[in-house]
Amino acid sequence: MSETHRKIIRYEAGQPLAADDHIAIEQPLEIRLRNRSLSVTMRTPGHDNGLAAGFLLGEGLVNSKDDILSIDPCAFDREGNVINVKPSPSLKIDFEKLTRHVFASSSCGVCGKASIDAIHHLFPPINSDLKITAAAILSLPEKLRAAQPTFDQTGGLHAAALFDQSGNFLISREDIGRHNAVDKVLGWALLQNHLPLSQHILLVSGRASFEIMQKALAARIAIVAAISAPSSLAIDFAEESDQTLVGFLRPGRMNIYSHGHRIRFD
Amino acid sequence: MSETHRKIIRYEAGQPLAADDHIAIEQPLEIRLRNRSLSVTMRTPGHDNGLAAGFLLGEGLVNSKDDILSIDPCAFDREGNVINVKPSPSLKIDFEKLTRHVFASSSCGVCGKASIDAIHHLFPPINSDLKITAAAILSLPEKLRAAQPTFDQTGGLHAAALFDQSGNFLISREDIGRHNAVDKVLGWALLQNHLPLSQHILLVSGRASFEIMQKALAARIAIVAAISAPSSLAIDFAEESDQTLVGFLRPGRMNIYSHGHRIRFD
Repeated sequence: MSETHRKIIRYEAGQPLAADDHIAIEQPLEIRLRNRSLSVTMRTPGHDNGLAAGFLLGEGLVNSKDDILSIDPCAFDREGNVINVKPSPSLKIDFEKLTRHVFASSSCGVCGKASIDAIHHLFPPINSDLKITAAAILSLPEKLRAAQPTFDQTGGLHAAALFDQSGNFLISREDIGRHNAVDKVLGWALLQNHLPLSQHILLVSGRASFEIMQKALAARIAIVAAISAPSSLAIDFAEESDQTLVGFLRPGRMNIYSHGHRIRFD
Repeated sequence: MSETHRKIIRYEAGQPLAADDHIAIEQPLEIRLRNRSLSVTMRTPGHDNGLAAGFLLGEGLVNSKDDILSIDPCAFDREGNVINVKPSPSLKIDFEKLTRHVFASSSCGVCGKASIDAIHHLFPPINSDLKITAAAILSLPEKLRAAQPTFDQTGGLHAAALFDQSGNFLISREDIGRHNAVDKVLGWALLQNHLPLSQHILLVSGRASFEIMQKALAARIAIVAAISAPSSLAIDFAEESDQTLVGFLRPGRMNIYSHGHRIRFD
């Protein structure tokens, strides 16, 4: 199952309407090899055995079917988000060969709720009375384009941008990585001594994931707008963090996934 | 500088033509805090100070400008791909708070060339005499759509698919993460005992990055086609790995970034 549904507010032709939206599921998966935790990745559930086998192949840890005896969910994890690969007993595993080591910290669980709780342990939910008009939000993408007329002739870059509560453009940064573009914008704000950004809006050119919402929360941003789709875990995170999450921000329309009370439709 | 140029073959209206293309730059950046390596991320160079500050903010390691004394490139690294954040002496750093720990292995350098060499230490370059017609490559996206008529009603999923040398569809997988979709496809092939995939073609719905090319090389795939843009490091990787890399695969047209000798234009 790769998709779910959520109740949203669809804003179109000047009107907010309750609607139901298809959402891509994002959930953590912890991959273990010989019961050693190697990776926690945010993924869409389904075909987890393939995902684990492919991950190990790409890291050079296994090379063929013969290297794998079995792949099974760990019994202690009722969510199905921890999977253990049992390799052939003869397989020599050189953990030093890993080009990327991603370890879960002890506080980071292996379901969406635990992932959110772990972040809230670092950054409490927002408490902001920021309000903005729907018209101001709708104007953001055009303002970003106007500020960066030569942005991305490659088709390969993402952008992130910061606006004040009136919708005035402050800064934008670009990167091949969505998360990097957001880091560059928020890091600029930190180095300029502009934190907390409780009266600001973050715009991202692509999708909104759990990690994007985490970074926004760290900077105390109450409103995040994405040109493309949010994931299920981004919505859950925004809901529990008191963040307003807007997606599919296109000319004259947008979807509001959480805390729409900050948006004025007059 | 976020963009560079590369000589490519642009195939359009049935004709291959030499062309020059804008490419988004992808290079590794190692972020250090108090000279301890915290992260190696693939990023587009520029505004690295902001990237480092934003990364540390998102991880809860710094909270304000006062927490940072200085951010400087490490002198030993002439490429400018290693950056050290010197925090305030009074800042208590709890490295256990990190939600994601990404360590570079000792073999993984901090420039594109070293990154490629590190992967080639695991997986040697391809040596394949696979040939395919331009028409067969152009037909892949439509075959993927036909195989998955209900794919992604969310706008939030990526797809990866595998085809044989005649362009016949074998399997596809979807995920919110591009890399996960590729892992699921290649992991499936491994578990089905189909490796090596030296006579197969990998199609990805989005962009082609260094990491996508790494995974393809691990499975011995000689031809990778992407619907969207490749990064500079993906092209360099493909060039040195004897992989044919196709990008912007759209109806009737495509860009060929490396090893076009595998594509027949008759």
